[in-house]
Amino acid sequence: MKVAVLTGGVGGAKLVLGLTRIMAPRDITAIVNTGDDFTHLGLPVSPDIDTLLYTLSGKANAVQGWGREGETWSFMSALRSLGGPDWFHLGDGDLALHVMRLAGGLLSQTTARAAAAWGVHVEVLPMSDNPVATMLETNAGLLSFQRYFVDHSCAPIVRSIFFDGVQHSAPAAGVLRAIEKADTVVIAPSNPWLSIDPILAVPGIEAALRRTTAPIIAVSPIIAGKAVKGPTAKLMAELGLPVANTAIVAHYGDLLQGLVIDSGDDPGVDLGVCTARTATLMTTLDDRARVARAAIDLARLFRP
Amino acid sequence: MKVAVLTGGVGGAKLVLGLTRIMAPRDITAIVNTGDDFTHLGLPVSPDIDTLLYTLSGKANAVQGWGREGETWSFMSALRSLGGPDWFHLGDGDLALHVMRLAGGLLSQTTARAAAAWGVHVEVLPMSDNPVATMLETNAGLLSFQRYFVDHSCAPIVRSIFFDGVQHSAPAAGVLRAIEKADTVVIAPSNPWLSIDPILAVPGIEAALRRTTAPIIAVSPIIAGKAVKGPTAKLMAELGLPVANTAIVAHYGDLLQGLVIDSGDDPGVDLGVCTARTATLMTTLDDRARVARAAIDLARLFRP
Repeated sequence: MKVAVLTGGVGGAKLVLGLTRIMAPRDITAIVNTGDDFTHLGLPVSPDIDTLLYTLSGKANAVQGWGREGETWSFMSALRSLGGPDWFHLGDGDLALHVMRLAGGLLSQTTARAAAAWGVHVEVLPMSDNPVATMLETNAGLLSFQRYFVDHSCAPIVRSIFFDGVQHSAPAAGVLRAIEKADTVVIAPSNPWLSIDPILAVPGIEAALRRTTAPIIAVSPIIAGKAVKGPTAKLMAELGLPVANTAIVAHYGDLLQGLVIDSGDDPGVDLGVCTARTATLMTTLDDRARVARAAIDLARLFRP
Repeated sequence: MKVAVLTGGVGGAKLVLGLTRIMAPRDITAIVNTGDDFTHLGLPVSPDIDTLLYTLSGKANAVQGWGREGETWSFMSALRSLGGPDWFHLGDGDLALHVMRLAGGLLSQTTARAAAAWGVHVEVLPMSDNPVATMLETNAGLLSFQRYFVDHSCAPIVRSIFFDGVQHSAPAAGVLRAIEKADTVVIAPSNPWLSIDPILAVPGIEAALRRTTAPIIAVSPIIAGKAVKGPTAKLMAELGLPVANTAIVAHYGDLLQGLVIDSGDDPGVDLGVCTARTATLMTTLDDRARVARAAIDLARLFRP
């Protein structure tokens, strides 16, 4: 069985790690959001790709939720002493991936090289090798994703979101093939508007998802009317949406065959798609495997 | 009194630091070799500029002879794990200067910004803002300076040296003015062929030195037939030169009014220029001030 996962950073990476516990990593392709990517101080930074690589190679800082375990900070300290910008934190070890990308090659190539070097057998693919920038129209003006997320700590009120450059982008090599070959497509519990929509907006990807006969199963990022992490709930409220699974289902529309929801959520609500219920908060490795299993088991209902 | 110093890295930086002990730092301009500069993994590296900045701001690693005191190495460790090249060592804190340069601006501008941020009052100027690459024809083929110096540990036999791009370069802003305004020009005890010649080869610099009425005093890099550090003696032998002060004087020719030589060197040799004798090995800060004082005192003989 082959699985393709559409994913953003932290939450999605946990689900992909969970999948590696219940199936062969080589049969998993992670199609990763690159709308958060930006060039900082001339360095190409790909936060979600890096979170996948760190998580799957056992290097992620679990407590911090981003970056590397055991990181050092001499670079930031020296940069600060030079009067350089310090709103975006680049760890010393983390710099290696950014410098490796700076040294050349497509993002998909440098990602594959890092995965191979670190023994990551999941196929980790950027959604595109072309630059796409998630931009937010807010009450504090037009903000790029990292300015909104890191510099402004998600405080501004979001009015609308667009993906700059996406109309000129193409799926990275292997993305469409992974969708075509997948027996199951999983949409990770990443932010639908900020992390999954950029992937769906790359010309060709949504069409490939509509073409496939494989079931498409999402794991809901909502637990009892709250988002596990990040700005999802706040953003949904600002976009005038109920912070509920109904809004997740409405957002993905007829793309979706099934939704994995939290066991604490109201079972009485008719979501209009098949659901599976499990504790979706992924704290331990066992949690991750259980949520992954729930998604794969739900998909099985749709396969001959 | 204003002093302009032509200098390479380590030895030259020590002399400049010595000068700051006997005169106002603001009256000193260091005109620094950039022939060792190169782009490594996409990062612009300027070793001699950085050595000046670290030495003058008290950040240099005195034992190692390059880089920063108290440096950490998480970046190199992560780079190695990715299969990246590890022949050139980039410390975590050291990366801040390279990334600052990557982020933009002329080398002279980023250098001035770093000097200001770190309280360095000596005017530190790159010889040029244009790329110039010191190249060595050797028995191991054509090598750039860092490949020769770091990767090959100066082992290859050097047949000739040239400065790629120098004919299209121009002195950085302030270089010619610093020479014109100087009451004394000092040539640091850096390698004449590898560290000083690139500076002299930048169109306009040697002409400015010939125009000035200020005395030009060199500090010899030779002590009792040996070079203090680096490949100077080996290189001189390979170029068919005696490892002696006579070769230093012959190299600089009539540019030179005086030479500071080591007190252990044979005083009986007629060098054809005025000499001052002092212990030129610069181990302590007092040594550095003493050698600087010897050069300035020697210059005084030529001024009205």
